[in-house]
This record gives sequence, structure tokens and C-alpha cells, in this order.
Amino acid sequence: MQAEIITIGDEILIGQIIDTNSAWIAQKLNAIGIRVKQISSVSDERGHILEALSHADVRADIILITGGLGPTKDDITKKTLAEYFGVGLVENKDALDNVTRIFERFKSPLLEVNKRQAEVPENCEVILNKNGTAPGMWFNYNGKIYVSMPGVPHEMMYMMEEAVIPKLQATLKLPFIIHKTILTAGEGESFLAEKIADIEDALPAYVKLAYLPKLGQVRLRLSAYGEDEKALKDKINEYTAKIVERVGNAVVAQEDIPLEKAILNFMTEKGLTLSTAESCTGGYIAHLITLHPGSSKVFFGGAVSYSYELKESILGVKNETLWQYGAVSKETVTEMVEGALLNFKSDYAIAVTGIAGPDGGTPDKPVGIVWVGVANAEKTITRKFLFGNKRQQNIERTAISALNMLNMLLKEFKN
Amino acid sequence: MQAEIITIGDEILIGQIIDTNSAWIAQKLNAIGIRVKQISSVSDERGHILEALSHADVRADIILITGGLGPTKDDITKKTLAEYFGVGLVENKDALDNVTRIFERFKSPLLEVNKRQAEVPENCEVILNKNGTAPGMWFNYNGKIYVSMPGVPHEMMYMMEEAVIPKLQATLKLPFIIHKTILTAGEGESFLAEKIADIEDALPAYVKLAYLPKLGQVRLRLSAYGEDEKALKDKINEYTAKIVERVGNAVVAQEDIPLEKAILNFMTEKGLTLSTAESCTGGYIAHLITLHPGSSKVFFGGAVSYSYELKESILGVKNETLWQYGAVSKETVTEMVEGALLNFKSDYAIAVTGIAGPDGGTPDKPVGIVWVGVANAEKTITRKFLFGNKRQQNIERTAISALNMLNMLLKEFKN
Repeated sequence: MQAEIITIGDEILIGQIIDTNSAWIAQKLNAIGIRVKQISSVSDERGHILEALSHADVRADIILITGGLGPTKDDITKKTLAEYFGVGLVENKDALDNVTRIFERFKSPLLEVNKRQAEVPENCEVILNKNGTAPGMWFNYNGKIYVSMPGVPHEMMYMMEEAVIPKLQATLKLPFIIHKTILTAGEGESFLAEKIADIEDALPAYVKLAYLPKLGQVRLRLSAYGEDEKALKDKINEYTAKIVERVGNAVVAQEDIPLEKAILNFMTEKGLTLSTAESCTGGYIAHLITLHPGSSKVFFGGAVSYSYELKESILGVKNETLWQYGAVSKETVTEMVEGALLNFKSDYAIAVTGIAGPDGGTPDKPVGIVWVGVANAEKTITRKFLFGNKRQQNIERTAISALNMLNMLLKEFKN
Repeated sequence: MQAEIITIGDEILIGQIIDTNSAWIAQKLNAIGIRVKQISSVSDERGHILEALSHADVRADIILITGGLGPTKDDITKKTLAEYFGVGLVENKDALDNVTRIFERFKSPLLEVNKRQAEVPENCEVILNKNGTAPGMWFNYNGKIYVSMPGVPHEMMYMMEEAVIPKLQATLKLPFIIHKTILTAGEGESFLAEKIADIEDALPAYVKLAYLPKLGQVRLRLSAYGEDEKALKDKINEYTAKIVERVGNAVVAQEDIPLEKAILNFMTEKGLTLSTAESCTGGYIAHLITLHPGSSKVFFGGAVSYSYELKESILGVKNETLWQYGAVSKETVTEMVEGALLNFKSDYAIAVTGIAGPDGGTPDKPVGIVWVGVANAEKTITRKFLFGNKRQQNIERTAISALNMLNMLLKEFKN
């Protein structure tokens, strides 16, 4: 079963926005066994839209369209779809009720132009837009399925999850697909591939293994396709267990979550607390952690100690240490991480200090040098890294390396 | 002059990566007066690639292709392009030298499969890939220009900036385009539009004004297209001055930089220093600031004071204040921001405290409530915001609001 995605509108073509919708839709479709053949972004022009629709119709069974459903004159998707299907536009009661409800909620007057948002091609089935005024539309035409949705991400996502995906699954004979993600950290893709080569070779044809690497982490994703859901689950579990056993300590989680979320889950479960002392990452590690709801159960906070003075006053790093060994040194990072434990009274702490660049390096301390420390009451571990000269990459890599070191230390935790 | 972008490869079609390349390329092309007609992502299949090329050829004069140039078997872009142009593949000396140089640098043995990366279609002009082994390729074919580049962003970007854009400008008769961005903060798009309506109406046809809104900021971008560079610049400067005068205090910068960078520039120039005390933003404000090289001249650092204890111990917030008024209150944010000034010894400070959500709200302090304070030695300003219930959005909006309040306070600075 093949699908195509067409996005309509100039914002993507002038580079004003990045098309994140299509990747999201593609993931959702792949997860239910529908492959995406092509993604096309086209302009708000009648002829161009008609051409894109007929080209997609030749290649795919399902055509998902986003964008061009706003109330203004340049939004011509609806009119053009009606022309493509050879039908007229009619006012839809449910869609009108929805527009009216939204305008009442915001106490705005309902203008003629807004009412017209409730007009849809005669042959469509309306998909309710809980988060906006433009209705989604489902069409069955010449044995193919066409779906038109707004381009606003949260409006589209709601429609996909609540209506489109369930309806596709109910309408089409799709295979069962079971996915399982194993998050690993600290080992490279080729190292992992070699380590599990024989397991991978022995996979049955209906089970696929994908390596998804990203900054010091590799996700191993197993996907099984078939008719018998139970048998697929058993097979996935069997191979997950084999891989997890073989990869050993590099396994962080057996679900598709980021490293810091896996750490938060473990620390929440064990009732452990954390603080941070960040120099070169400038708050990025704290930001990654606090993006997750419930992080306040584990995370007390910490210091962004960019200057010498704050390293001394908040973390208690000794003035002699800074002047004798420098801010980027094993000695300083040790005092930072131990100072965080002591002053912030957490069970675990992370500290980082380095030269993020692009300037500020010296011959013996070049741009990209970073010291990371993690500690609990019993143990302090420090490690030196040498990254490149791109500031943002250095910040991101330092954060992942620090989280990975914390994760390794947490593995030694005994209840 | 119209262009199309074709990305080749399955990573985008399965939603594994988001196509950021195309938006970047589209921006670069628009900036030199080339419009993008369509962006297509297609699979690694010979027939599908050939079809995409012929469809693009009908619509556009310039076809830019990314991806599918790796050394593995599923990378078939080169072979397929040769077939499309009806030519064979030949080994290119410059490309081979480049591959050899890179393998020597990494002290890796040069395999046959790597050597084959230096093979290119006979009719191409090789574009040097400074950052990788796959050469870029420029073709003139039937009066159209085809360019094939790797999909790895930094390899593609280098080629575009160093070779493709200059060569397009040298080859084609493109109009001069002058862009000028005015960054504003704190006022909505429609408010700004109304305020400068008469200026916008009076713009000559060859000058366009675009509103680019993003989280509490609006970029006003003037673009002038024509033959006479000097006249265009004069016209842009004339209208920039008019708009800046009219918009007044909402203008943050007259260049295309983020709000925090504009603040850093001003504070660097005036020799002013900054610290932060973040609760609900959890380090995100410090992260935004420290992403910029040279921020250490201005930014001392600060506290991520998630817990009550750290608000007291690092910032000196009084225990009675926290218990009497709560952590999310005017009183607490005032003590936080004044504590940051005092303890971190900076000229200016930012403090934020709020309920980022999605849980943790109470009837009188719902999710999305945020108090922000900014201060210098003379003055403390606090303000309450009520955002929504999406955690990440609340964090981002709080950060922008806080930076904007700091910017307003900095406007009062007298040398």
C-alpha cells in the first residue's frame, strides 16, 4: 500500500518554514504499514495543484494533502479539489457548527469569509477540526483515498491521530506491524553492527532492523510485518532479548525515549535526586532535563557557572584550583561536581567545563576540549573529551556525553 | 527564473529525518532572485528518479538534486543521472584526489568502493566537496541547469555557498535583490501592519514587505528587486528609516539576528553584564544566550533554581516569602532577580518562575502562569503572563518574554 504527501503553499517554497509535517505523517503511515512513495511541496496555483494530484494518483493509493485551507484568497486547495473531482462546493452543517463554536469561544464576530470555511466539495466526508476552523476532508475517488488537512501542525496531527489513521486501518487491509526500539548510548553504529551481526543475519525476512544514530546514541529499531499479531510480538520480543543481552551495558532503554528521559524514569523510580553545574553547556543539560514533565521530582536545579567568580561562589571551587589548573581541568570539574553535590544536596550531580568555541582555545587547551564529571556520595568519575570547533555541536555532544556518564554511574546503583 | 529541488533517498520518506536542506536551499535561491516551483522527495529507485527529473524539467530552468551519492549500493543518483543524460561514467581526477586526500587524513585504507566515488557522468563539471568524498556535479543540458549535491547538510551547504550560488549568479541574468530585516519584539503582526499600513501602501512595486512572526517577535523583511543596485539600496534605506521611526520602541535590531543576540551586542558595546535565575525555563534562557560565541563577555551565568531550597540557598529568596506567597509570585520573582544581581554581581539580571505544565496547576495558579522579573541596580520590573498548557511552548514563550523585558529595560540605559 503506497501513499503520497502533497503540501500546498508558498511558505515552504520560499524557505520560510521547514516542512516538519511530512516527516511526522510519514512516520505515522510507516508505523501502520503504509509506505510513502513521494513527498511534494507545490505552490498555491490551480494548474500546479491539479498536476500534482494527477501525478500522485498514478503512483499511489492514498494521497494526503496539507495546507491551503485558510480563509484568505490565496488558499485555493478546496476549490481546486472540487474541480479535480468534478463536483461543486456545499455548506457542511458540522463544519459550520464547529466554526461557530470557535468564534463564540473567542467572542469574535463571525464574518462571511469565516462561514465560507464550512463549504466543502460535495463528494467529501468532513473530518472535524477540533483545534481550528478549517475542516479536514476525506474523499473516495476512482478506488483511491484522498485526504485534505490544514497545514497547521497541531490541527493536522489531531486529525491524523483521531480520524485519518483509524479510518485508514479500518478501511484498508493492512498488515500488522510491531515496532520495538532499543536505545543505546556510548557505542558507534558500526561497532554495534559488528557486535550483533550474527543476530541480524538470522532475522527472518519479515523482521527488519534499522540503525538510527544521533550524537553518541544509536536507536536499534526492530519492525515485524505480518498477519499474526501474537506471533510477531513473540518474535520481536525474542530478538529484543537477544540484542539487549549482547549489547549489554550500552543499552539505556527498551523504548523510544531520549537518554535524559530514560535517566529521569530510573531516578524517579528509585527516588534519587540530581543537580547540575554547567559551564560550557550554559544551561543546555538543565534545559534537556526540564523539558520533561515531572522532572522536578528528580531535578533540584543547579548552576550555570560561566565566570570564575560563580564557580567559586555557587559551587565552592577553590580560587587556587582555578588559577593553578585553569577552569577547564580535571581538578576544576571535580570540585564543581562535588560542590554541586554538597551545596545543592542532591544524590547525584553532573558538572561540565570546556571551550565551546569557535574562539578561546590555547595550544594546550584547544577549542573543543571538555571535562565532564559525574558523582554521587561514594564516587566521582571525570573524563576528558576533545570535540570539534563548532560551538553548537560541542554543546550538544558535551550534554549527551555527560548524560551518558551519569547513566553509567546509575547502573552501579544498588537499591 | 524558476528552480526545483529534488531530494533522493528513503530517510525522508520514512520520516527518519526532516528535510531541512530544501528550506535552506529555497532561502538561498530566493535571496538571489530565483523562485522555487516545487520540492519533491523521491525514493532510491531508478524509474522514480527518472520520472522526477523529467517532470521537473518541464516546469523549471534549474534543477537542484540532493542525496543518493554515498558509496553503498542503494545510492544510485549518479548512475541514474548518467542514464538520464545518455552518457557514461568516467573517473574524475580532481574528485579522486579529494577522496585520496580525505582517506589519507583519516589514515584509512582506500577501498575500490571509495575510489568509485570519483566516477561521474561524462558531461558533468565537478564541484569540489571540501567536507566529504562525494563530488558535487553541475550539468548544462538542453538549455537547463542540473546540479547534484550530497544530502549531508554541511557538505551541501558548503557547495551551495562556495560554488553553486556564485556560478548561478555568473551564468544567469538575475536581478539585483537587496534584503533588509528589522527585528521587532513585543507587538503582534496585525498591530504592526496597522501601524505602518500607509508606509506599506506607498511601497513601489519592486519593493516587497514580508511579516515573519515567531513567538512574540516579528521580523519585517524588505526586499527590493531591480537592475540598479545603488538605487535599490537607497530605496530600502529610505523605507527602513520610515518603518523604524514609526514602529519605535518595538524595534530590537536592524539586522536578521535573534533577540538575545541583539541584546548581547548592545551589552557588549556598553560593557554591561548579565546573570539569570531560572525556575520554569530550567536553563533555556541561559542556553539561548550561551549559544552565541563571545557571550561570556556579557554573561556571568546564573542559577537554575527548580527547588525551593535552591531558590533560598543560591538566590537568597526568603523562606517566608516562598511559604506566604508561593514560588510563583511577584514577591518571589522580585527576590529572585534582586538576589541574582546581588549574589552574581552582574549589572542586569533576569528571573523567571512559573508553572510550565502540563500538570502542577491550582485553581488560583493555573498551568501556564509565569512571573518574570528583570532588574538593574536602580530598577526592578516584574510582570505576570498567562500562557497555555503546552510545556515546551510555555518555556519558549517565557524566555522570549523575559528577553524582551530585559531589552526594554536596556533601552533606558544612559551611557
